[in-house]
Amino acid sequence: MTLETSLIDSALRNWQATIDRAGKLFGKLSPEQLLEEVAPGKNRLIYLWGHLTAFNDALIPLLGFGPRIHPELDLMFVSNPDRTVPTILLGEDLKTIWQETSQLLWTEFVKLSVADWLQKHGAVSEEDFLREPHRNRFTVLLGRTGHIAYHLGQAKLWERAQT
Amino acid sequence: MTLETSLIDSALRNWQATIDRAGKLFGKLSPEQLLEEVAPGKNRLIYLWGHLTAFNDALIPLLGFGPRIHPELDLMFVSNPDRTVPTILLGEDLKTIWQETSQLLWTEFVKLSVADWLQKHGAVSEEDFLREPHRNRFTVLLGRTGHIAYHLGQAKLWERAQT
Repeated sequence: MTLETSLIDSALRNWQATIDRAGKLFGKLSPEQLLEEVAPGKNRLIYLWGHLTAFNDALIPLLGFGPRIHPELDLMFVSNPDRTVPTILLGEDLKTIWQETSQLLWTEFVKLSVADWLQKHGAVSEEDFLREPHRNRFTVLLGRTGHIAYHLGQAKLWERAQT
Repeated sequence: MTLETSLIDSALRNWQATIDRAGKLFGKLSPEQLLEEVAPGKNRLIYLWGHLTAFNDALIPLLGFGPRIHPELDLMFVSNPDRTVPTILLGEDLKTIWQETSQLLWTEFVKLSVADWLQKHGAVSEEDFLREPHRNRFTVLLGRTGHIAYHLGQAKLWERAQT
């Protein structure tokens, strides 16, 4: 491994460990548990999981891997707050989509060279990227790993209360 | 910037953005607010902030930057659960220590070369590091950024309830 690929290896390990923690926590919840709130008056567990799943799916075009597979997730889990639109997806659906998107992302991640990781992501213009070259795929990977950790911390508040 | 230093630049930006978000959220809380729980029966805000501050401080020796400055934090915020030992530090103390440790870490971070980042961290033996070279400083940086994000998500649950 070269110096650069070692740095990417660290980031990919961190991503995958975080994905695994989230998949394990949410994947084992019963349909009833998924409807519980992480804390009184806060988002329900199904909303957090759907939200993270939608963000996984949105990474596909953002990183240039192709079109989204499940854009329908956004209405329920991103563009509207919890409980304002009907949640027609079940935990089993989310589990399937979570695995599907996580697998697709991983397959694409490991194909990227160091130079590929430093290419611009899909939501920045060529002009802006010239001025701000840190708006690259690698930065997105790190930021999205943190986004999962952020909501995982919230879901853990609920989980600890069960024991 | 070379390919490698661009990767490190991304990670340092992500670290600093996360540190800034936490410092801003916790730093503006009143002494009374710091004693509130993030959710009923959960850790108090002062415990979360002290916990993150203790982890910042512990990074100093872990990354080879010298001895800890505030090992006394651990008794209150790491080795014991919240409310089991008296919290004798105030928010103002934590704010000072948070700034002090964040500044020291940043000063040391920017001195490190790519090869330095890939050196082993302080809690792994030479033998283990030969087998598991990913247990390096860079991996620690990424993991600890996620650790801050994890607890920041919890503190945000409280913050959103105030508005």
